[in-house]
Amino acid sequence: MSNHKIVVIGAGLCGSLLAIRLKQRGFDVELFEKRPDMRKAKISAGRSINLALSNRGLKALKMIGLEEKARKITIPMRGRMLHDREGELFFSPYSGREGDYINSISRGQLNSLLYDEAEKLGININFNMGCVDSDPDSGWLTFEDENGKMTKIVAEAVFGADGAGSAIRKAAMERSNLIRFNFSQDFLTHGYKELSIPPGPNQSFRIEKNALHIWPRKTFMMIGLPNPDATFTMTLFLPFEGKDGFDAIRSDEDVFNYFKKWFPDAIPHMPNLIEEYHDNPTSSLGTIRCFPWQTGKRTLLIGDAAHAIVPFYGQGMNCAFEDVVVLDKIMDQTGSDWERTFSQFQRVRKPDADAIADLAIDNFLEMRDRVADPVFMQKRKLEMELEKNFPEYYSKYSMVTFLDEMRYSEALKKGRKQDEFLLELCRREPDIQKLNFSELLNELGRL
Amino acid sequence: MSNHKIVVIGAGLCGSLLAIRLKQRGFDVELFEKRPDMRKAKISAGRSINLALSNRGLKALKMIGLEEKARKITIPMRGRMLHDREGELFFSPYSGREGDYINSISRGQLNSLLYDEAEKLGININFNMGCVDSDPDSGWLTFEDENGKMTKIVAEAVFGADGAGSAIRKAAMERSNLIRFNFSQDFLTHGYKELSIPPGPNQSFRIEKNALHIWPRKTFMMIGLPNPDATFTMTLFLPFEGKDGFDAIRSDEDVFNYFKKWFPDAIPHMPNLIEEYHDNPTSSLGTIRCFPWQTGKRTLLIGDAAHAIVPFYGQGMNCAFEDVVVLDKIMDQTGSDWERTFSQFQRVRKPDADAIADLAIDNFLEMRDRVADPVFMQKRKLEMELEKNFPEYYSKYSMVTFLDEMRYSEALKKGRKQDEFLLELCRREPDIQKLNFSELLNELGRL
Repeated sequence: MSNHKIVVIGAGLCGSLLAIRLKQRGFDVELFEKRPDMRKAKISAGRSINLALSNRGLKALKMIGLEEKARKITIPMRGRMLHDREGELFFSPYSGREGDYINSISRGQLNSLLYDEAEKLGININFNMGCVDSDPDSGWLTFEDENGKMTKIVAEAVFGADGAGSAIRKAAMERSNLIRFNFSQDFLTHGYKELSIPPGPNQSFRIEKNALHIWPRKTFMMIGLPNPDATFTMTLFLPFEGKDGFDAIRSDEDVFNYFKKWFPDAIPHMPNLIEEYHDNPTSSLGTIRCFPWQTGKRTLLIGDAAHAIVPFYGQGMNCAFEDVVVLDKIMDQTGSDWERTFSQFQRVRKPDADAIADLAIDNFLEMRDRVADPVFMQKRKLEMELEKNFPEYYSKYSMVTFLDEMRYSEALKKGRKQDEFLLELCRREPDIQKLNFSELLNELGRL
Repeated sequence: MSNHKIVVIGAGLCGSLLAIRLKQRGFDVELFEKRPDMRKAKISAGRSINLALSNRGLKALKMIGLEEKARKITIPMRGRMLHDREGELFFSPYSGREGDYINSISRGQLNSLLYDEAEKLGININFNMGCVDSDPDSGWLTFEDENGKMTKIVAEAVFGADGAGSAIRKAAMERSNLIRFNFSQDFLTHGYKELSIPPGPNQSFRIEKNALHIWPRKTFMMIGLPNPDATFTMTLFLPFEGKDGFDAIRSDEDVFNYFKKWFPDAIPHMPNLIEEYHDNPTSSLGTIRCFPWQTGKRTLLIGDAAHAIVPFYGQGMNCAFEDVVVLDKIMDQTGSDWERTFSQFQRVRKPDADAIADLAIDNFLEMRDRVADPVFMQKRKLEMELEKNFPEYYSKYSMVTFLDEMRYSEALKKGRKQDEFLLELCRREPDIQKLNFSELLNELGRL
């Protein structure tokens, strides 16, 4: 086998997009994926089947020429639809700007789109090939197929894009002392379970189609995202333990009573609730950080393998896609000098990966608790007004989600300051009509 | 095999002491150790061969009746002997109290003492038996001996006392999502290398025997601890990279020039310097934290396996020994109810393990940099005076090292506040004779 091959481990969203980009740059790329081809196999139930695609992700798709194709399989979500315990609805737009919205997309459909494109470009995707051994310095890799057959290859450069449970990262853990591999994994005390709302009569959407639905209940919540087949993927985020936690909801009656108490307006739309609650797994949520991402001379961790985050900002995929955009820009300078590429990439990108990890945890608190708070709602209204009237104004949410030219680390810094200032302002002055917007904008500029 | 056996994995210092204590409490204990019997094999060169035993560790040894025997193989170190670049010496006592000192002890000798005691009590120590598989809920364990022979046993309770590289902790990592296993490893950018000073004429000590020697050089340092055979174990703590780092010191000439520049007074005492510098490994230093320590119904991590720290407070062994004292006290209430014992132990002990990890990193900065600072030296003098005159006064160092009834977490909180206050005072008033000690003590009490 040629010594000039670039190998991408993991043909998930990030790995597939990365392989396509490297191929477009003229490299001889090969993809390895431990799972079977999802275009032929069924995706397992109850496992994050849809995602929110926003500007950073779209920019990456545009880079490889797939933005338009991807947009065709999305459903725009223009804001949060809040459901209170009485079933009252309140819609809170994501932005005051017309064109700013996020997009619900099926993980399976998007990944299949990337597979088709990769194969069209002549990239070989080796399915059912799990990486069982790797030498990050020499580029030697060993794969095991579904029949236990081993294959050894050597690569000029190896990208570990194999997700939160990365085998390439685990290999780095084995040589921790040698490379001084800093690593942390932190779990939330909350877990999640996926449920669903089926289509209504004539394939209609049973609840508002163009929104991300939230049932915020202070210490826990349920959310719902629309799918093109008129279903909604519902995700319940509860503590594992305690009074209102998964552990306390066991029998059919428990489930029904819990929903009746906390999410009564959802019950009529969820005919399979009891069955799904029992059948679907309860999964944990965690943040993974590590460094270096360059685990050897020839190996780089990228995407979730380098930085797995909790899902509450809808930025996991967007961040992983942006990794490839950042890498691509560096390669404009470094070309095929992989050691330089890898070391520059990790230096430039690490602060942003750390920032979005923190932001994602912040947003959990915001979604389950603060969204329903009157002062917070007032602040959101004020921000909508500012965004409508001043093109230069971006809320923290908008910086992270829509302003793809701003780094996450900058969005975190500016956004937090701005939030603090505006929340304090709304606490003091509940009537936003009384505010002088131009003065306010000046003050925000000074922050 | 009986179902009522207690198994301790790892016959290092903590595991051996724990096994002895459990046996003394009447349990059927067995010890498993992956290495050979160190009483018969040679300990590998250049690997932390001596340690500082202080009050918390002595308390644990007293609990099992070995304090006196251990004291016989120690060398008291009454303070820090600072060496400046001109070879000038400055002695800084550890405490103003006569009886407060720390003790240099050989890891091998202490461990052998524990082995002898364990065997005297009838504990079977299975050497060359590495744990290769474990089920933390059922207590099933698989060991592999030096010939590759596998042995399976089941234990009523399993203690993972197998150190910083714990196999029992790695098994917990494999089920991270299930038990939501929080974990972090953080390496310092500094590493260490062990060197030595041989005995002088007639087995004399070439430098002061009853001190811990420090060559503080701001961003790096060397330390020296006395051994009963009149040698000193020297440890060089340098950055891995950069101008004054290990990477820059490669040739014989580099080593000699480096020592001539930074540690000239040590050169005449280190005839094997060049050889040892090349032969001994450069090792990394890191902090490991994790939680839960109870990794299953029947399994608990303890000692370094649960919380590995950097060596700068001389508390690694003392902390691990104190773990056993804390566990023993809990067992007064919980007896052989292991689930209760384990869950109480981790709840009570975790904040103290976190505190000593933080304190150990603090002390690195103090030893390599601040010890030679005039304000810091003045503050230490003031603290000596306070400790001499007021039995109720303890410096942060004394709280951690000598006041074994105070929890690490409390020592951290109180000690940091006290340090801040006294340093500020010494900055304002360089002449400590002008201070009113009783008033000062009142102020410190109010903190």
